[in-house]
Amino acid sequence: MFDMENRRAELLDKIEELILRKQYAQLRSLLLPMEAADIAQLCEELSEEQLPLVFRLLPKELAAEVFVELDSDEQEMLIRGFSNTELKEVLDELYLDDTVDIVEEMPANVVKRILRHSDPDTRKSINEILKYPEDSTGSIMTTEYVDLQKDMTVAAAFKRIRRTGPDKETINICYVIDKNRRLIGLVSIRTLLLADEDAVIEDIMETSIVSVSTLDDQELTARALSKYDFLALPVVDTENRLVGIVTVDDAMDVLQDEVTEDIQLMAAILPSDKPYLKNGIFEIFRARIPWLLLLMISATFTGQIIAKFETALAAFTVLTAYIPMLMDTGGNSGSQASVTVIRGVSLGQIKFSDLPQVVWKETRVSIVCGVVLSAANFVKLMLVDRMLFHNSAVTVPVAATVCATLILTVFCAKLVGCTLPLLAKKIGFDPAVMASPFITTIVDAISLLIYFQFAALLLGI
Amino acid sequence: MFDMENRRAELLDKIEELILRKQYAQLRSLLLPMEAADIAQLCEELSEEQLPLVFRLLPKELAAEVFVELDSDEQEMLIRGFSNTELKEVLDELYLDDTVDIVEEMPANVVKRILRHSDPDTRKSINEILKYPEDSTGSIMTTEYVDLQKDMTVAAAFKRIRRTGPDKETINICYVIDKNRRLIGLVSIRTLLLADEDAVIEDIMETSIVSVSTLDDQELTARALSKYDFLALPVVDTENRLVGIVTVDDAMDVLQDEVTEDIQLMAAILPSDKPYLKNGIFEIFRARIPWLLLLMISATFTGQIIAKFETALAAFTVLTAYIPMLMDTGGNSGSQASVTVIRGVSLGQIKFSDLPQVVWKETRVSIVCGVVLSAANFVKLMLVDRMLFHNSAVTVPVAATVCATLILTVFCAKLVGCTLPLLAKKIGFDPAVMASPFITTIVDAISLLIYFQFAALLLGI
Repeated sequence: MFDMENRRAELLDKIEELILRKQYAQLRSLLLPMEAADIAQLCEELSEEQLPLVFRLLPKELAAEVFVELDSDEQEMLIRGFSNTELKEVLDELYLDDTVDIVEEMPANVVKRILRHSDPDTRKSINEILKYPEDSTGSIMTTEYVDLQKDMTVAAAFKRIRRTGPDKETINICYVIDKNRRLIGLVSIRTLLLADEDAVIEDIMETSIVSVSTLDDQELTARALSKYDFLALPVVDTENRLVGIVTVDDAMDVLQDEVTEDIQLMAAILPSDKPYLKNGIFEIFRARIPWLLLLMISATFTGQIIAKFETALAAFTVLTAYIPMLMDTGGNSGSQASVTVIRGVSLGQIKFSDLPQVVWKETRVSIVCGVVLSAANFVKLMLVDRMLFHNSAVTVPVAATVCATLILTVFCAKLVGCTLPLLAKKIGFDPAVMASPFITTIVDAISLLIYFQFAALLLGI
Repeated sequence: MFDMENRRAELLDKIEELILRKQYAQLRSLLLPMEAADIAQLCEELSEEQLPLVFRLLPKELAAEVFVELDSDEQEMLIRGFSNTELKEVLDELYLDDTVDIVEEMPANVVKRILRHSDPDTRKSINEILKYPEDSTGSIMTTEYVDLQKDMTVAAAFKRIRRTGPDKETINICYVIDKNRRLIGLVSIRTLLLADEDAVIEDIMETSIVSVSTLDDQELTARALSKYDFLALPVVDTENRLVGIVTVDDAMDVLQDEVTEDIQLMAAILPSDKPYLKNGIFEIFRARIPWLLLLMISATFTGQIIAKFETALAAFTVLTAYIPMLMDTGGNSGSQASVTVIRGVSLGQIKFSDLPQVVWKETRVSIVCGVVLSAANFVKLMLVDRMLFHNSAVTVPVAATVCATLILTVFCAKLVGCTLPLLAKKIGFDPAVMASPFITTIVDAISLLIYFQFAALLLGI
């Protein structure tokens, strides 16, 4: 199966050759057995003339599936080339949540054209979903679910599923609602299949339901789906009326995007959901420069500390050589702690109320780490720097200064590293910002202050 | 729904109170409407005496579901307390892949007891799955799927699903096999429901199937499930015989664990899949110390470079103050590039063959970033350091040295940052190792070398 990735270049050549020779029937039979996601990947490498040609060869249903998988640039290109009939055909095949995703990415004139060619019910649903805030559960839900009444028999339920099922995103879970559309139960297709034909839905439905609200953060909804191993979650409004469902495939996409966002923030990059290779130079630049500038300016403080001790350093030049090692080790220790806590918070394993427990854990870990690092460093200073490289400036007091700094720096770094993400979370910031780059900048300054204090104490500078 | 998290402390108090007062019926009705995952979370905070008590109150099926969600420590504790009958009852309710997960975490004597009380078929399957390598698809698959024959009618298929379905992990997709158990098609429950009762499976099944092999990396399998939006993927052996399926809930867990592993590697931590708060001090220490030591020793080279230019620095002490800023900005620029590439590789968006394109992109981004940072820094040096702080040592040549170093450092950092992860991938290492800490150590040395070259050139040190 994973051949696909390796065969892409070869397939692309083949497709372009068939287009050139106008052997469309052969091209069609080459594409037909492929998965929509794979065809879309190939389509993205085709030229502006080739893409519509290939697209029109696909049967309606497959074409719609491929369309959903394309990037918004290609989608826009295709829509602009579609006749009204073609546009309507594609729109009719799409699931509602996919249509909404597409509409969200298109410029206003394309959106108008899409809405004009959607049927009135769909148009109304699209407009409603568009109203939900960007990161809300409402914005990723679909309104195409199967609903049942509690007094139906299983046979009647199957009849309804057979009649309405083809247009629904999933039939694996059906939702039971009362006359006011309030959600009162759910029943899986498995339960229905294993039940007696005459059984009444009310007697077989599950009534302890986990549901989410339209305004819940979509990341929380996705995590809940993953935690409970559900295939879909019902979405209700403030009066517990069923308004939609979120399916597991959309939840997976949400989780993947959130992780990418977290990782970008941790590396001091402003989040973007465009794939790297599709992103322009200035988009990448804009995402990276703010933090670089901010952190560069912040590093000024570290410079000020060094400048303040310039004369002392001039007298003990050997101390300068250990500044990078102290700053790096501090930075690394701090980011180990911060990244661990950030991930724990994302996964819902660590909460603000765990702060004392986290601090106590990190305190003990930092002492063990600090002592081991410090001992290793002392041996290295004495054996390598002093004896091997004959650097007579590396005296025992100098080594003691470096090693004492190391222990205290690791301790402070771990403490700062584990505390800041939780504090950020508490005051409503994304904890991921408190990762390596930010922690490093703070720990740099701390480590230098500690260094010069110990130097004053032990070396009398 | 998300009340659960906030109500945990309150619920826990209530549970402990009910245990104390021996009001077991009330305790049972408190737990019954909850999801298994939530009960498990509560159970983990109970004492060794309370846990078995609560567990025994649950109905068989729910108890098994809760058991699966518990951490391995609690599972072991419960198993050790189970009578043989109790153990058999729980095992009978478990899905095969869950049993395997549990067996993998238990000490040998507990494993023996589990195998002794599993029925012979299950025992055989467990032993087979245990044989697959740790990260392989075989090790996360289940053998409990619905299989159909191509000459069955839809009515016969439903009969088979009704008969065998209760023990299957999913009935949403059924697999069609020939007499040699070779996979020849699949059919979703939706297709079956919408088809005519007399239709023959062969005529309605889908034959262009995406399948994975038992030895495929489980991360690739999980990504494929996510890419194609499937609910399950069939797993075949080298002769295309169906041996199992991987379901979407397991794929989500794999993806989540892989991300945690990547993030840990990126922060120079050896991966562990135990939640942070459950991990002991020495386990955390062992995961963190190797990289800290290695990186500390590597920083020695940076120190050597400074030591070599000690006398020059003593003459131009002002240069020392800008070392942290140069190293940090270089490190941040490099990790922005490396983390972006690492994530792109994980998501399958960037391959080794994209290296030239990546390098060309980063080259241009680095020039724009470098020039902007450098200009900002020049203004800051002249206006703040020289004019505001009256530091007369900050002359135009000094500022020029710092700014020229900045441009070249950012350029080198981005290049190293985008290249190393792809090279690591090429030679079979995990690209995530080539993230911030490692890149920082390399870029530190590079930035200092550049700094002293420019200083020699512009200041004649």
